Amino acid sequence: MRPSGRSPAQLRPVRIERGYTKHAPGSVLVSFGDTRVLCTASVEERAPAWKKEGGWVTAEYGMLPGATHERSRREAAVGKQSGRTQEIQRLIGRALRACVDLDALGNYTLTIDCDVLQADGGTRTAAITGGYVALADALATMRARGLIKRDPLFGQVAAVSVGIYRGTPVLDLDYAEDADCECDMNVVMNEAGRFVEIQGTAEGHAFSRQELDALLELAGGGIRELIEAQRRALSG
Amino acid sequence: MRPSGRSPAQLRPVRIERGYTKHAPGSVLVSFGDTRVLCTASVEERAPAWKKEGGWVTAEYGMLPGATHERSRREAAVGKQSGRTQEIQRLIGRALRACVDLDALGNYTLTIDCDVLQADGGTRTAAITGGYVALADALATMRARGLIKRDPLFGQVAAVSVGIYRGTPVLDLDYAEDADCECDMNVVMNEAGRFVEIQGTAEGHAFSRQELDALLELAGGGIRELIEAQRRALSG
Amino acid sequence: MRPSGRSPAQLRPVRIERGYTKHAPGSVLVSFGDTRVLCTASVEERAPAWKKEGGWVTAEYGMLPGATHERSRREAAVGKQSGRTQEIQRLIGRALRACVDLDALGNYTLTIDCDVLQADGGTRTAAITGGYVALADALATMRARGLIKRDPLFGQVAAVSVGIYRGTPVLDLDYAEDADCECDMNVVMNEAGRFVEIQGTAEGHAFSRQELDALLELAGGGIRELIEAQRRALSG
Amino acid sequence: MRPSGRSPAQLRPVRIERGYTKHAPGSVLVSFGDTRVLCTASVEERAPAWKKEGGWVTAEYGMLPGATHERSRREAAVGKQSGRTQEIQRLIGRALRACVDLDALGNYTLTIDCDVLQADGGTRTAAITGGYVALADALATMRARGLIKRDPLFGQVAAVSVGIYRGTPVLDLDYAEDADCECDMNVVMNEAGRFVEIQGTAEGHAFSRQELDALLELAGGGIRELIEAQRRALSG
Amino acid sequence: MRPSGRSPAQLRPVRIERGYTKHAPGSVLVSFGDTRVLCTASVEERAPAWKKEGGWVTAEYGMLPGATHERSRREAAVGKQSGRTQEIQRLIGRALRACVDLDALGNYTLTIDCDVLQADGGTRTAAITGGYVALADALATMRARGLIKRDPLFGQVAAVSVGIYRGTPVLDLDYAEDADCECDMNVVMNEAGRFVEIQGTAEGHAFSRQELDALLELAGGGIRELIEAQRRALSG
Amino acid sequence: MRPSGRSPAQLRPVRIERGYTKHAPGSVLVSFGDTRVLCTASVEERAPAWKKEGGWVTAEYGMLPGATHERSRREAAVGKQSGRTQEIQRLIGRALRACVDLDALGNYTLTIDCDVLQADGGTRTAAITGGYVALADALATMRARGLIKRDPLFGQVAAVSVGIYRGTPVLDLDYAEDADCECDMNVVMNEAGRFVEIQGTAEGHAFSRQELDALLELAGGGIRELIEAQRRALSG
Repeated sequence: MRPSGRSPAQLRPVRIERGYTKHAPGSVLVSFGDTRVLCTASVEERAPAWKKEGGWVTAEYGMLPGATHERSRREAAVGKQSGRTQEIQRLIGRALRACVDLDALGNYTLTIDCDVLQADGGTRTAAITGGYVALADALATMRARGLIKRDPLFGQVAAVSVGIYRGTPVLDLDYAEDADCECDMNVVMNEAGRFVEIQGTAEGHAFSRQELDALLELAGGGIRELIEAQRRALSG
Repeated sequence: MRPSGRSPAQLRPVRIERGYTKHAPGSVLVSFGDTRVLCTASVEERAPAWKKEGGWVTAEYGMLPGATHERSRREAAVGKQSGRTQEIQRLIGRALRACVDLDALGNYTLTIDCDVLQADGGTRTAAITGGYVALADALATMRARGLIKRDPLFGQVAAVSVGIYRGTPVLDLDYAEDADCECDMNVVMNEAGRFVEIQGTAEGHAFSRQELDALLELAGGGIRELIEAQRRALSG
Repeated sequence: MRPSGRSPAQLRPVRIERGYTKHAPGSVLVSFGDTRVLCTASVEERAPAWKKEGGWVTAEYGMLPGATHERSRREAAVGKQSGRTQEIQRLIGRALRACVDLDALGNYTLTIDCDVLQADGGTRTAAITGGYVALADALATMRARGLIKRDPLFGQVAAVSVGIYRGTPVLDLDYAEDADCECDMNVVMNEAGRFVEIQGTAEGHAFSRQELDALLELAGGGIRELIEAQRRALSG
Repeated sequence: MRPSGRSPAQLRPVRIERGYTKHAPGSVLVSFGDTRVLCTASVEERAPAWKKEGGWVTAEYGMLPGATHERSRREAAVGKQSGRTQEIQRLIGRALRACVDLDALGNYTLTIDCDVLQADGGTRTAAITGGYVALADALATMRARGLIKRDPLFGQVAAVSVGIYRGTPVLDLDYAEDADCECDMNVVMNEAGRFVEIQGTAEGHAFSRQELDALLELAGGGIRELIEAQRRALSG
Repeated sequence: MRPSGRSPAQLRPVRIERGYTKHAPGSVLVSFGDTRVLCTASVEERAPAWKKEGGWVTAEYGMLPGATHERSRREAAVGKQSGRTQEIQRLIGRALRACVDLDALGNYTLTIDCDVLQADGGTRTAAITGGYVALADALATMRARGLIKRDPLFGQVAAVSVGIYRGTPVLDLDYAEDADCECDMNVVMNEAGRFVEIQGTAEGHAFSRQELDALLELAGGGIRELIEAQRRALSG
Repeated sequence: MRPSGRSPAQLRPVRIERGYTKHAPGSVLVSFGDTRVLCTASVEERAPAWKKEGGWVTAEYGMLPGATHERSRREAAVGKQSGRTQEIQRLIGRALRACVDLDALGNYTLTIDCDVLQADGGTRTAAITGGYVALADALATMRARGLIKRDPLFGQVAAVSVGIYRGTPVLDLDYAEDADCECDMNVVMNEAGRFVEIQGTAEGHAFSRQELDALLELAGGGIRELIEAQRRALSG
């Protein structure tokens, strides 16, 4: 039995609110249950120094100090981003670049800032899922303003976690499950059901090929629902 | 005429939502018009090393990168907090300590994190005004849990900005006014109408004693309304 | 009774020695009693990146480790400037810019370095008062060398602290008073008696409007004397 | 056809030299073809502050500046470890902890330093594979010295990369393949053929479930050979 | 001919002013011609963590930004001490420890802060020579206060630079000579004429054994005069 | 008697292996007994910003954490290079520049990275001696590729340590001697027997002129052998 009472293949309630703040051309508050992440997409007219042609999409991730059970230290005050933060923001960036034609971006850099207002497990998968919508909104604004000619966006990208909790493969782990699971995996897929990224870790319990298959199955189902939720939000 | 159409002594609409997030014992979303700041108050069982007795109240301030017109750089990525950030968080901390009996706090440190979700001028005054409510909620929780015996809170503290915009003293400047004003001042006062902090700056136009008096008058009126708004929120 | 035996409205002996070191075009050792600050004004041919036209005036502040009662840590060794240091150097820079026409500065940046050789309260007000003289000397050198055509300096700027010490408003607090006062305020004014900056803080005792008026009165008198001392030094 | 002329399921020549340096209790130079990583395992009598009981195993990763085609910047001189470095050393640490009973380690911390002397693709998988042997040697030394009572090591752990190069799934990518592949995956498995970690990324080409299956198949075969190479080295 | 008109074996005028500032128990302004360094010796009741017994003597060095021909950057603002600064402060610390019995220091650390107010070549040798006097004053104060029982100071230590300027070995180089010399050497000696430290560098012109002998001869003569100047200052 | 059984004027076995890694144009593993340093020379097409003409030669030094008796902390993880590291790499750079005509280098910077794989005393002297060979190899490669026209290298440079161990002057100290010696000196000389750099330190025992002479004599003999070893390696 899951702590939340959900069935193994059941997502938490997903909410995607567009236009949450007013300055950034894309601004989305995404909720996976009690996990709430504010994703804003900003546009700057510069490409990274190391790139000869085309634009760039990158992500930054942060956790508000009060977002967790125990207050976490403010990374700006500590003076550096933790390894965990860097790992997550690199993942978000790679995932979102997987559905953008960078050449069509011209000389622009889009930064997707994902700041966790409230954490309850799965912040990185919520960030990717909501970040995609913020990115889509920012690109639409760019086209409307004539900054780019053709749409650099192809397909969709969403992410979900899966894991083995007390022997059972489950979808979309919340904090209570995450803190106590035997192995967990973050899966990023596109709208065609293909894999963009898989990151599975088993500190406690090395998982068998059969378990892996079951987890991927669950993830596939969750992603289909999230892709659909993105569509509804964007057409809303 | 003010860009917003307000009269010189008119505050922007003020909203104070308690319990905005669930983990921190005090969590307040405060809005001064389009300026929105999330203030959370967290409790840790430790006093600062340099303090021999009693507890401590401190504040940290941050601006989400997407909160401003142009994306601002993430301080955690830059590797340090700017001078502006430090100045603001030191101000918030001093202001809130002015209404707390630190000896009654025992061995606890309260940290008030003020993170700006959307900036439109006056983020530090909103942070102090909302931070007070988050602090009050956290202290109430501490008493309810028996962590402290008597209430360390005495009185109230709120803050507002005033400035001279195109020759006229005005209350509670928004970004359009702030970017274009001749002098601006942040005033922190308590519920008895006494001053806790005054910070007035005139880069463009040195102000006369008469102008100063007019500004302090405006500030006094604004603070009375904010003190009242805090009361309503806390009794709500 | 003040620890130093001064009357409430009495400044400490003020000394302004020009040409204290030989390399910088402006170099002033300013003393407010036992507080001694070395202010040098250096000229570099570059404007800050973010400025499209005109020059810039900025300040940096430091405390020699042996300048205080207990040795303070060297910020260069710690690896960053404290919040207090940044707050002070930002204040000095704003204050001095208030009497300079930046457009007349061409493409030059003037940096006023204020290093405290001995601290006894009021280091930031001494730094502003002495820094003004160093700035004036550097600008005179620039004109003599033909680097700038017209004098960018208009008026004068000086600063002094005031505070309530054991119930009495007093002028120009020394360390013994500063460590034990109920509220203190730094006031920057120009030669016309107008305010350039006011920073008043009351951690212990919130101050009334009447007290504020008394403090501003004292400050005004002190500033007049400092403005006069600057004039004497510059004509010496 | 692979640039090296290898068949798709063929590892590069693997060499594991124990006792490469003399101070660390475990010191292994591991080569996967031209990739050479020096792995040393050091023992310190301290557990991390946040751990209440038992010991800890952690890893640090570095790339000598001259190890790559173009000289890379020295991270010690830059002043921080890159996100890539942190990601890799976190992966190595998790992988190696998967075969250690931390409770049996007492109050000791083992650090596995993995420094790349020469890079030609697959440095992290070589580091895990060689780091395991250094770890085993250090633990044997600890037992010989009576520092620990029972053997904390259970099973073996090795790692290999797989990817799709010009449409064909291949094992153990070298630099020429890595720089030009459509998707690549690092797989960590134990001696029982179970998964400890999977990290697969597809920036260019999202991969299908069938492709994933083919990659995992290849990885399984490679790991079996590496597990065998570790055994031979340890019994040598 | 030397730019200053001095003969090859002639020191610049040396001045050692004790009691230059009032807080530190040792405070000396030392001048070697136009080079002026403020040396303060502070006492803290703590020994470094890595030392099991006895006290410690250490030094820190800094250059005020306005002390040089062109303003140098403030290391506190840059965020780290340069390699040159660290090299110099390590040298000063080693030199001064050579005349202190650390066991007799009890649990105290003395820090000698050497801050250059005006630079004209030879700042490190002036710092060692003046730092010795500040150290002696601080130790005398410690004995007078009963903090230590026996005098930890044995002998004296002074330093001077020598170099080959336009083919001629000269003593105590000023900036004009330093910037244009073929090889320069800093020599630290004690009152018995023995060597504490020698650091000679020849970027331009590798020096012969004969040249080395001539330089050491000059240094020996200079040190004798400096040792005498220290004695006079301390008995003054 | 020396711990190693060597006679006072006897070097440890010296080995210089060229082509130790394949990417850098110069790559040398140098051993002075158990001290092993990997020196790679890399070429980049850029000159330092502060240089108007000609190229540059610089060095960086690092110690692998597992290279020492007790694991040393990784400087990249600590976030800065220690004073010792900076001192050493500055010395290596100066020493190697002493035999290079920088004007003949065109617009290129050569970086000599010296990473200690195993430490047993004398790492900096081994680094200079081996770094010279790596530098020579890189310059030969540059000429072969037509990047530079004439050979910028003139003469040779090598380094050795000397010290007084239990009253006897000895050559090329190993760790056991280094940790227990009364004074030690690093000497850099060229193939003509002239001095490029001398750094002698006596924390414990100030040394006499006679002792200095004996040490320099020993150093001269050691350098001759090292110069010969370099020649053999380069002609091998």
